[in-house]
Amino acid sequence: MAGNSFGKLFKITTWGESHGKALGVIIDGCPPMLDLSEEDIQAELDKRAPGNSEVTSPRKEPDRVEILSGVFEGKTTGAPISLIIKNIDVDSSKYEKIRDIFRPGHADYTYFVKYGIRDHRGGGRSSGRETVGRVAAGAVAKKILRMRGINITGYTKQIGDITASVIDLNEIEKNDVRCPDKNTAHKMIEKIKEVRKSGDSIGGIVEIIASGVPPGLGEPVFDKLNADIAKALMSIGAVKGVEIGAGFKSALLLGSQNNDEMYIKACGERSESSEKVKFKTNNSGGILGGISNGDDIVVRIAVKPTASISKLQRSVDIHGKEREIRVEGRHDPCICPRIVPVAEAMMAVVIADHLLLNIS
Amino acid sequence: MAGNSFGKLFKITTWGESHGKALGVIIDGCPPMLDLSEEDIQAELDKRAPGNSEVTSPRKEPDRVEILSGVFEGKTTGAPISLIIKNIDVDSSKYEKIRDIFRPGHADYTYFVKYGIRDHRGGGRSSGRETVGRVAAGAVAKKILRMRGINITGYTKQIGDITASVIDLNEIEKNDVRCPDKNTAHKMIEKIKEVRKSGDSIGGIVEIIASGVPPGLGEPVFDKLNADIAKALMSIGAVKGVEIGAGFKSALLLGSQNNDEMYIKACGERSESSEKVKFKTNNSGGILGGISNGDDIVVRIAVKPTASISKLQRSVDIHGKEREIRVEGRHDPCICPRIVPVAEAMMAVVIADHLLLNIS
Amino acid sequence: MAGNSFGKLFKITTWGESHGKALGVIIDGCPPMLDLSEEDIQAELDKRAPGNSEVTSPRKEPDRVEILSGVFEGKTTGAPISLIIKNIDVDSSKYEKIRDIFRPGHADYTYFVKYGIRDHRGGGRSSGRETVGRVAAGAVAKKILRMRGINITGYTKQIGDITASVIDLNEIEKNDVRCPDKNTAHKMIEKIKEVRKSGDSIGGIVEIIASGVPPGLGEPVFDKLNADIAKALMSIGAVKGVEIGAGFKSALLLGSQNNDEMYIKACGERSESSEKVKFKTNNSGGILGGISNGDDIVVRIAVKPTASISKLQRSVDIHGKEREIRVEGRHDPCICPRIVPVAEAMMAVVIADHLLLNIS
Amino acid sequence: MAGNSFGKLFKITTWGESHGKALGVIIDGCPPMLDLSEEDIQAELDKRAPGNSEVTSPRKEPDRVEILSGVFEGKTTGAPISLIIKNIDVDSSKYEKIRDIFRPGHADYTYFVKYGIRDHRGGGRSSGRETVGRVAAGAVAKKILRMRGINITGYTKQIGDITASVIDLNEIEKNDVRCPDKNTAHKMIEKIKEVRKSGDSIGGIVEIIASGVPPGLGEPVFDKLNADIAKALMSIGAVKGVEIGAGFKSALLLGSQNNDEMYIKACGERSESSEKVKFKTNNSGGILGGISNGDDIVVRIAVKPTASISKLQRSVDIHGKEREIRVEGRHDPCICPRIVPVAEAMMAVVIADHLLLNIS
Repeated sequence: MAGNSFGKLFKITTWGESHGKALGVIIDGCPPMLDLSEEDIQAELDKRAPGNSEVTSPRKEPDRVEILSGVFEGKTTGAPISLIIKNIDVDSSKYEKIRDIFRPGHADYTYFVKYGIRDHRGGGRSSGRETVGRVAAGAVAKKILRMRGINITGYTKQIGDITASVIDLNEIEKNDVRCPDKNTAHKMIEKIKEVRKSGDSIGGIVEIIASGVPPGLGEPVFDKLNADIAKALMSIGAVKGVEIGAGFKSALLLGSQNNDEMYIKACGERSESSEKVKFKTNNSGGILGGISNGDDIVVRIAVKPTASISKLQRSVDIHGKEREIRVEGRHDPCICPRIVPVAEAMMAVVIADHLLLNIS
Repeated sequence: MAGNSFGKLFKITTWGESHGKALGVIIDGCPPMLDLSEEDIQAELDKRAPGNSEVTSPRKEPDRVEILSGVFEGKTTGAPISLIIKNIDVDSSKYEKIRDIFRPGHADYTYFVKYGIRDHRGGGRSSGRETVGRVAAGAVAKKILRMRGINITGYTKQIGDITASVIDLNEIEKNDVRCPDKNTAHKMIEKIKEVRKSGDSIGGIVEIIASGVPPGLGEPVFDKLNADIAKALMSIGAVKGVEIGAGFKSALLLGSQNNDEMYIKACGERSESSEKVKFKTNNSGGILGGISNGDDIVVRIAVKPTASISKLQRSVDIHGKEREIRVEGRHDPCICPRIVPVAEAMMAVVIADHLLLNIS
Repeated sequence: MAGNSFGKLFKITTWGESHGKALGVIIDGCPPMLDLSEEDIQAELDKRAPGNSEVTSPRKEPDRVEILSGVFEGKTTGAPISLIIKNIDVDSSKYEKIRDIFRPGHADYTYFVKYGIRDHRGGGRSSGRETVGRVAAGAVAKKILRMRGINITGYTKQIGDITASVIDLNEIEKNDVRCPDKNTAHKMIEKIKEVRKSGDSIGGIVEIIASGVPPGLGEPVFDKLNADIAKALMSIGAVKGVEIGAGFKSALLLGSQNNDEMYIKACGERSESSEKVKFKTNNSGGILGGISNGDDIVVRIAVKPTASISKLQRSVDIHGKEREIRVEGRHDPCICPRIVPVAEAMMAVVIADHLLLNIS
Repeated sequence: MAGNSFGKLFKITTWGESHGKALGVIIDGCPPMLDLSEEDIQAELDKRAPGNSEVTSPRKEPDRVEILSGVFEGKTTGAPISLIIKNIDVDSSKYEKIRDIFRPGHADYTYFVKYGIRDHRGGGRSSGRETVGRVAAGAVAKKILRMRGINITGYTKQIGDITASVIDLNEIEKNDVRCPDKNTAHKMIEKIKEVRKSGDSIGGIVEIIASGVPPGLGEPVFDKLNADIAKALMSIGAVKGVEIGAGFKSALLLGSQNNDEMYIKACGERSESSEKVKFKTNNSGGILGGISNGDDIVVRIAVKPTASISKLQRSVDIHGKEREIRVEGRHDPCICPRIVPVAEAMMAVVIADHLLLNIS
């Protein structure tokens, strides 16, 4: 019960279903006196919106955000910020024929067992559409972070077995898969088209980097920065794994390889001693003992292939009968490009929350 | 601030430092009328205790637990359960010479930046010794779970590049690395001895399985079962990654490979329809849409090589000077075998908490 | 920061300002499968609405509620319920002339100090209009409670020195002050009219009774039922005191007078032993040791006179200058009748939350 | 479940029963680098300890506190502070004969209904002895507050119908009832002796003042400073009412009487504009709109007469039978003097928590 809020001091509460009237989010704890407009938020929502490319769902949602409270004469007031995004292009007809069948790989079965009721229209609350509220809140968090010199950037690192070999942040928004490697992007797009044509879907890996994070964020021993990042990212629909820094590769390393040695960087005269400490490598991913160390925070998430596929699958229905199912509707053959803004948003929310926690 | 509690309804709060007087945990929310004795808890602590084998730290801590409250005439009362474990074999002398140097790979630097004070004795609060309170609380959670037919089992799946190829749960406690594959265990132990001899350490992967978990646990969209598991496990000192089910391998799969098809299993007459639904595969790791689906919950964590190594490393001190350091003291060359009970404990705490949340 | 949520398992989050676009509430944790319509909620909002009588503010707000999420085909789904009430009759012109003056008795000064920004339009977030979200959420809580035989009833017990001497619950909605004593109601109304005519306002006492509450609700030692009730009621704008049972009169009593003796009531055959225990008196107000005892929960709140008065007052402005002020606009000369549904709502929310907490 | 923690950023978790091995508290969120010794805490515990005068319980508990964690070389480290107080003078024999009878006015019945188990020894967790952890935590909170010029002072204002007519803070610790009025103190003591002799007990009112609180503390709309104070104080065993400023007297006032007019006080050259605003009266009790206004915070609590009396009372037992009972043991005929340090502690905890919340 009551699992729709995230954060302690910068707290977001999302609501809304895929085929309901609207979706939204309340941001409680945004500092006052921040310039904030609907355009600030819209820019992030546009990155998440479907229907923008040949490798995403054709559902056409303009996803226009409206600020209903918490902003007065262009500035935040400290009061809760209510953001709403109306659903426009709702077409539940495709879902009628699977009204009582559980789609494999989806939450249909588990929601039904838990709540005893089935909102079959596009997954209801378990739809990826739920993330629209996360992205809206993340846009506000990002603004707070940018004012302190913190930037969050995500990109598609891998799709299937195709991996980016160059990380050029300027390339990300230039291709439909948000890959930082121009040449690889092309191969990824071809792969996704091929998979879509066969009625299938494919997984991938998204990497998110937070740069400019000051040392000191994170609240041991349970509310460590990496622990909260792991929760935030794992709470996104299709995510099956989270790793930080060297991550699962750490298993293969010796301590002498994995430890990041420290050194003193010569700085300008203004800087304090704590700002001069640097790390030769970043296997830690910018977090030591659950607290940021001033280096880039580097996180990767494993994204499963979209569960909705038009290939024939075997399943069961709410009456306990075995059934066959083809999931029609408008789906993304690979969700990685659209998870990028969601993962960035959640990273931004976690870091904004820890910024406030650390000040106190 | 205030990051030392975990859980909403089954809430644990740990305290204590590596070289302080004692460590402990408060369990708030344990259901009343549960039989509970110090022996129940001691058994789990003994699994975590150092000094038990040739591949672990030689520090000799008996780790005797004492129940100070919450139990009356052998039964829990619903009042908070206070557990204390006194430190006996404290030897801070080895730490004197590194009193003002930050050990690479440790939290020394980040704690100093955050709190402005340095408890140099064995890492203070950031020590792995902090997990003694987690294991004590986990022992209580495990008792609650076992009464409902839920079992949590962890083991070392990989050390360096040596991976268990057989999973025989009966083997786990028969070898010093807690490997479920007898033959592989031998190779792992040889590897650790070799690494220790060279003054180094090595990483690995631990897998944890929760069986018997009923469908329905997890509170979308943020307090999903997998999200809370990810947080709980990532909050353990040396963990750099968490994956569930197919995890990072999902990136390579097609939807038609990854989706777990459902079928109806013929059951005895007593069973309800929801209990007959089964999955042909378990790529989901027992969780769909953040809610348990009744299948085994399968989780893996990446464990980095122990940061304390006696090899010479370059670092800096609290005065902003570059220094060289060899970390002496009594350390584990590979922490995997001792992380197993800690990971089990955190899994148990999360699932116990979600059991209570789901009932409400 | 982030103080706009209340409750643990039945959690409400309110948003919106007096002269903003809309106000609303998210209810997170409402059990699924509850019949819920906009009419259910509207009935409660109508009780709170201004402009309904000669003793309340003439602002004409229809306060139409819209359900945006969480309800599917007439039933709650377990997903968060988003309720919105649009502001219609906004007239900020009256506030222009006091744009930079702090109104005495209002939160103008403290909000300005805290947030560094002033939303002068009708008090912004600190307005009594904020309670519209509370009442909407309370309507849902009341539905949950009624299904379990729990009823919440509030009424105006005292205005100035005029006190109800009869408690007839059927009278409450028959008069404009919500007084359960017909004769006293008349005197109260005359008093309020007289006070309004002189450009002043007056305080009073509201009493709330929860009947049918089962024994066992409340979570010692901090989340006691009475502690959460005290917080919930004291969080309402004009409330300056909360007392339970004998309340402040307890100070005058001896233990032998104050203790509620117990006896066994002969019951029908179905009843369990715990249900037969009865109390001869109810000085405890239905709560012992922070846990409900099965008797009526009886609470009273002290309501201060409305701060907005048209009499001339001395104050200061945001530039640190002394000023004189007459607060125009549309105000209630006595807020008691309109606090009744708000106090009922908060009681309902607390008890619904504790019902869920006690089940778990 | 899990109701034994209080506070968000300065969070305390108490544990322990009246006749258990020990009691204690974890303080999580205490800022680092605060000088802290056992003597600091002991001074407050001594004020709460029984057996110190002819008007309190003769139970002789030295209540020696031990710091187990969170302090290193005399300073707090930011790690959780674990405080333990061992029970010494436990005599459960007096409780044997009422092992299965519910004492009127106590929580015996409600705990039994809720938890299904009865710790009959001195009330177990529901005992006033539970407050020892609160007072220990409050001592730490008070130290934090004093460093910022904030002082918390409580005293007995009324016992039965005897009310202090002079408030001289220097008198409080000079008499056994902690009355700030020397002459009244004498009458109160005579009254208590008379009541004790007759085997009875008596109630009273305690007032607590927080001076030096900066404006700006409190988090609307639910976590208002007054709301959290009300919860904190109402969570103390014998408290039946909480009022702030004019409190219940507000009911009798007109707005023109109750509103505290503001003026500008001429200050020294250093002060900022916000610090010069003053209030002519303090009917608000130092809180407007849930936020401190810089004036003294003035709170009163209604304290019921001690439930334990040796007069014969009628009650029931756990088997559903009617019984008669005389409560023997060592009890306070009036708990007001010993509630003073507990109420001060809870006020200190709330204000320390809000100080941290406001900084963030």
